[in-house]
Amino acid sequence: MKFEIHAKDGAARTGVIETERGSIRTPAFMPVGTQATVKAMSPEELVSAGAEIILSNTYHLYLRPGHEIIRQTGGLHKFMHWQKPVLTDSGGFQVYSLSSLRKIREDGVEFRSHLDGSLHFIGPEKAMEIQTALGSDIVMAFDECTPYPAEYEYALKSLELTTGWAGRCKEFLKRSERESAAALFGIVQGGMYKDLRERSLNELLEMDFEGYAAGGLSVGEPKDEMYDVVGFIAPKMPDTKPRYLMGVGDLLDMIEAVEHGFDMFDCVMPTRNARNGTLFTSAGRISIKKTEFKADPSPLDPECGCYTCRNYSRAYLRHLFLAREILSMRLNTIHNLHFYLNFMGNMRKAISAGAFARFKKKWGTVFGQNG
Amino acid sequence: MKFEIHAKDGAARTGVIETERGSIRTPAFMPVGTQATVKAMSPEELVSAGAEIILSNTYHLYLRPGHEIIRQTGGLHKFMHWQKPVLTDSGGFQVYSLSSLRKIREDGVEFRSHLDGSLHFIGPEKAMEIQTALGSDIVMAFDECTPYPAEYEYALKSLELTTGWAGRCKEFLKRSERESAAALFGIVQGGMYKDLRERSLNELLEMDFEGYAAGGLSVGEPKDEMYDVVGFIAPKMPDTKPRYLMGVGDLLDMIEAVEHGFDMFDCVMPTRNARNGTLFTSAGRISIKKTEFKADPSPLDPECGCYTCRNYSRAYLRHLFLAREILSMRLNTIHNLHFYLNFMGNMRKAISAGAFARFKKKWGTVFGQNG
Repeated sequence: MKFEIHAKDGAARTGVIETERGSIRTPAFMPVGTQATVKAMSPEELVSAGAEIILSNTYHLYLRPGHEIIRQTGGLHKFMHWQKPVLTDSGGFQVYSLSSLRKIREDGVEFRSHLDGSLHFIGPEKAMEIQTALGSDIVMAFDECTPYPAEYEYALKSLELTTGWAGRCKEFLKRSERESAAALFGIVQGGMYKDLRERSLNELLEMDFEGYAAGGLSVGEPKDEMYDVVGFIAPKMPDTKPRYLMGVGDLLDMIEAVEHGFDMFDCVMPTRNARNGTLFTSAGRISIKKTEFKADPSPLDPECGCYTCRNYSRAYLRHLFLAREILSMRLNTIHNLHFYLNFMGNMRKAISAGAFARFKKKWGTVFGQNG
Repeated sequence: MKFEIHAKDGAARTGVIETERGSIRTPAFMPVGTQATVKAMSPEELVSAGAEIILSNTYHLYLRPGHEIIRQTGGLHKFMHWQKPVLTDSGGFQVYSLSSLRKIREDGVEFRSHLDGSLHFIGPEKAMEIQTALGSDIVMAFDECTPYPAEYEYALKSLELTTGWAGRCKEFLKRSERESAAALFGIVQGGMYKDLRERSLNELLEMDFEGYAAGGLSVGEPKDEMYDVVGFIAPKMPDTKPRYLMGVGDLLDMIEAVEHGFDMFDCVMPTRNARNGTLFTSAGRISIKKTEFKADPSPLDPECGCYTCRNYSRAYLRHLFLAREILSMRLNTIHNLHFYLNFMGNMRKAISAGAFARFKKKWGTVFGQNG
């Protein structure tokens, strides 16, 4: 993996991550394909929307269908018919948010499946084994996602675990016989405590990862606390490596984070909102079920060039949504992802043109009010 | 509308129906797009599967979004982004099968919506008004779909209503100022009573429709009773007009009906089965959830050239189905429709080649056992 920065505007930067499976222009948004599919989308539609990388979930794929099945049938890319890069998360977040009866031990986490209650164990080695079996292009170190709020003592112990596990992930990949082309990213934890965040980062820096992520944000904390940590940690992360803000995907949050130097994002926001009928447009958010769209022959977003906006009216989209048709989820998701990925493209252009401040102001006006 | 027969093999015939919106090769299968969308499909995917006409439901579109909204936004074709022909049913079947508290009167049927219980009335004139507003290419006369079983007296009264309504449909379209390019088909009723079927057909023939349909079949009666009526009525229908067997879409039933001279079919079978994980293949039916497909890297049907079979494994399709992913419904529907429409294409070729008997024998073996 190579990372090159092509232009900067303040701390905001635009560049490209080169992987064996293709280039990822940054700042990049990664659509989420939890269960080896971005909900409602075909891979061709993702490419057409402008996706250059997707995220998939280690925890989910480990439980179903099982990473061994994916390995046996040729790896995740072949399994899901997606040729471009895939980043898999560490499983850490889902172990905490979805599973029950988890027991945190020095060597990993014991937990019960949210699907059938069966007992499982994932530690750093297992997380690497799973992600290697999947054939991910970017692999995340196993971490404990510190919840919010967390006492200082808890956050400290949690980050110590995460640091230890990160080292074991690196060791495991080094030892593994298979020559892995995957890049390993470390995850900075530490809750909302700046000294802990700094300590976490410094410990990871000593191990030298190919990219650095901030985890444990967008987990329920107020926006200003998140912005505070983002603004604190970003400039301390190495300038020459990709910086990934995990789980963040609100449009204005991404602008804020890019302003401080973050490069990568993932979030279910565009896809989940699409399925719930909330659509992002150049004029702000739209709830497609509103009565005012009943007989509206105009496209969802006249400024948008996506398949949905080129071929369907608001009246039709409203009808499909109220009739709970599958095509509703498809057309809405196509639009929202197109909007998001186009938004990132415009953000990159703004950085190249030294116009990031104007970009921020414009979208702050659009999404600050009704967004 | 023009109908030309190009070849016959016994009573089976293959030809083409020409409409202003395109040609429909017969025997033809019409995918069902009840709510102005064939569930899970885009119009482009329908074309790619080989669809030349789809069926949409008058009753559903009348209730939601309302035919006036569709008319205002440019008609059904524009609304749903489908340029090829559309046949709309009469609404008669749904009034009986879905609505509650229906009261049959001389001039139509009063019923309550299955959506919200609101009170509505559809009679022959209203059915024509709705279908005209939708802009259908083939319009079905309003009928009473005689239930099964039905007493002789009931079936007789029912067919008299249907005959009367058929005449009023024809009158209404003749009177309507708008020059309608739509073709009007009459629907033969009469339950399982051959003399009533013949009487129904003869009464319709006096009015001269552009096509003739057999309704009230595949409504719960045993197969041999259905085959009996099919074999009785088909040869009495005019040779020069399309013959449409409504609601029938079991593969072997279609073969049986084509053998007697039917030309058109519609059914939710391929689409509904797809969503339930039952897939039609050259080796018979497959239930994709079976454990045996867990790590099966082979395509669903090695003899199939559809998008699903070209790009995905059985293991992946099983995973998507068990994970209840939307893409499961998409990929399965693409395959089943492709299979169905390809099956019809092969049936047409068999008729042209005088090999219909062999075609029947082959598929009887495949789907007679496990089908």
